[in-house]
Amino acid sequence: MTLADTSPTDTASTDSEIDLTRAPLPERAITIYVCVTCRGGRPLDLVPVPGAVLATATVLAAEGTGIAVRPVRCLANCNRGLSAAVRRDGAWTYVFGNLDPSGGAGALIEGARLFANAPDGLMPWRGRPEALKRGLVARTPPFDFTGDS
Amino acid sequence: MTLADTSPTDTASTDSEIDLTRAPLPERAITIYVCVTCRGGRPLDLVPVPGAVLATATVLAAEGTGIAVRPVRCLANCNRGLSAAVRRDGAWTYVFGNLDPSGGAGALIEGARLFANAPDGLMPWRGRPEALKRGLVARTPPFDFTGDS
Repeated sequence: MTLADTSPTDTASTDSEIDLTRAPLPERAITIYVCVTCRGGRPLDLVPVPGAVLATATVLAAEGTGIAVRPVRCLANCNRGLSAAVRRDGAWTYVFGNLDPSGGAGALIEGARLFANAPDGLMPWRGRPEALKRGLVARTPPFDFTGDS
Repeated sequence: MTLADTSPTDTASTDSEIDLTRAPLPERAITIYVCVTCRGGRPLDLVPVPGAVLATATVLAAEGTGIAVRPVRCLANCNRGLSAAVRRDGAWTYVFGNLDPSGGAGALIEGARLFANAPDGLMPWRGRPEALKRGLVARTPPFDFTGDS
């Protein structure tokens, strides 16, 4: 858990009783970037590439959710397994590592939906899938972020 | 070194003979976000907070460069020492960890200047300060990034 994850507003946002499976997602509000070159320590000649497997699984898991899934060739997180970043428009981008090629997809979508519905624009810690707690690597600010006071 | 860092365009950008100490920086092109709550494993009651020391040193090192330095309260990189993120407008954001409270400031500014002058919008690997090679944690895409083909 990080400092940001303990903020009162962050916790509060997870206490709501919104049905996340039904709440409307603003179109294109969330984009998941999955690294399609990550091998997670597997052999270089392994086909399909584990990162590409995760990307495909995430595309399938995202169907009907309104969440965009995009391939990316490197998130520079190469020593921490399979990687993905989750961005909400106008909010922070979260980077995760050590994702499972199959189970990681469901975790990414679940985390993305939580994030999409968080009133404070932060991905809630409470309710976040375990893979996205253990695998949290870093977050980067919105493009117009001017710093904390 | 990451996959992205080995791209031909990336390497090429570092081979130019631009004098980085004199090249004009587009105003506000680069922002360095320094985590002011990072303690880098030091005691919780240590004052000043090591991250705040790094932030102050970075502000001083940035004077006259046109590089903006902003405090941030958490980059969620809490297990990897003192942290900072370097963003170029319209380009990628790089996250670094394990920065030195004093020497880290110079490295951040040097890396930021390289980044500002890179024609391909990537922070060059060649010429990048060692602290920003060893300390690379992740990078996140520009806000309008639609994925790699």
